[in-house]
Amino acid sequence: MPQQLSQLQPCSPRINRSFFVDRGHGVKEAFEVEAIGKVESSLTDLASAPKQGDEGAPDAWLVFEPSVLEALEGIHPGDEVIVLTWLHQARRDVLVTHPRGDVSRAQQGVFTTRSPNRPNPIGLHPVEVAAVDGRKVRVRKLEALNGTPILDVKSVLNPDISAR
Amino acid sequence: MPQQLSQLQPCSPRINRSFFVDRGHGVKEAFEVEAIGKVESSLTDLASAPKQGDEGAPDAWLVFEPSVLEALEGIHPGDEVIVLTWLHQARRDVLVTHPRGDVSRAQQGVFTTRSPNRPNPIGLHPVEVAAVDGRKVRVRKLEALNGTPILDVKSVLNPDISAR
Repeated sequence: MPQQLSQLQPCSPRINRSFFVDRGHGVKEAFEVEAIGKVESSLTDLASAPKQGDEGAPDAWLVFEPSVLEALEGIHPGDEVIVLTWLHQARRDVLVTHPRGDVSRAQQGVFTTRSPNRPNPIGLHPVEVAAVDGRKVRVRKLEALNGTPILDVKSVLNPDISAR
Repeated sequence: MPQQLSQLQPCSPRINRSFFVDRGHGVKEAFEVEAIGKVESSLTDLASAPKQGDEGAPDAWLVFEPSVLEALEGIHPGDEVIVLTWLHQARRDVLVTHPRGDVSRAQQGVFTTRSPNRPNPIGLHPVEVAAVDGRKVRVRKLEALNGTPILDVKSVLNPDISAR
């Protein structure tokens, strides 16, 4: 049964709770993710944005919420990290797609692609840290649009091999 | 202002909407992610689970919800994919941690680690597909616990280099 979010409020930030939603294809367990920051980028247009970071994406700023600043402790220029974003312009009802939007290619399931359109549109961006300035972190070659919410940053396990 | 989830229900599955929550550290924009499946694994104990897939993790099944089956179209044994999970036993209020839980190492921000404890506890698991059986996909060396909710599966951009 869908619960009202209000039933979970105010909740301890420590608690990792789920609720249940029905978005039109059956009741599912659900979780709430929060924007811990936003992307500041010169990329503003979905249509002209590169599909991947190494396809001409510009450097961009990750601007973090003051409340998560501590979580950045120890981040340095040169670090290879994986940024997780919420692809806020993506469609969530798409299950099959033409790879890279190329209609000459057969449709395949979105789980076999990197299409932004998928049930949970989480973006995965391996980037190099270029600079750190307080709660702003400059990263290289990020294909996320200006204003894209940031969900997480993780270290790359083996920095010598790409996070791709 | 926190909104009630009920205000968003029922919503079109096409719509990618946000709401606002305050989990104790300020109002933030938030999004709802759904479990599109669950992990079936012999790993049931957080304390004894390997920290990474290549540290002795067992093969496991990804069991998908029938409603997202189409999104698996084209997945084959041998494929390298990245599985995104919801680390349902993680703590969300942890911002600094000893890397790998080793108290002899200085604490650092969780965004410079792979600790499961972080504001949005999304797990990232690069795995190889071993078998596909209807809505069940067998994968190699997955360190996620039995019952872990699955959020997404993505192809690896360059299968010849690790997704690490």
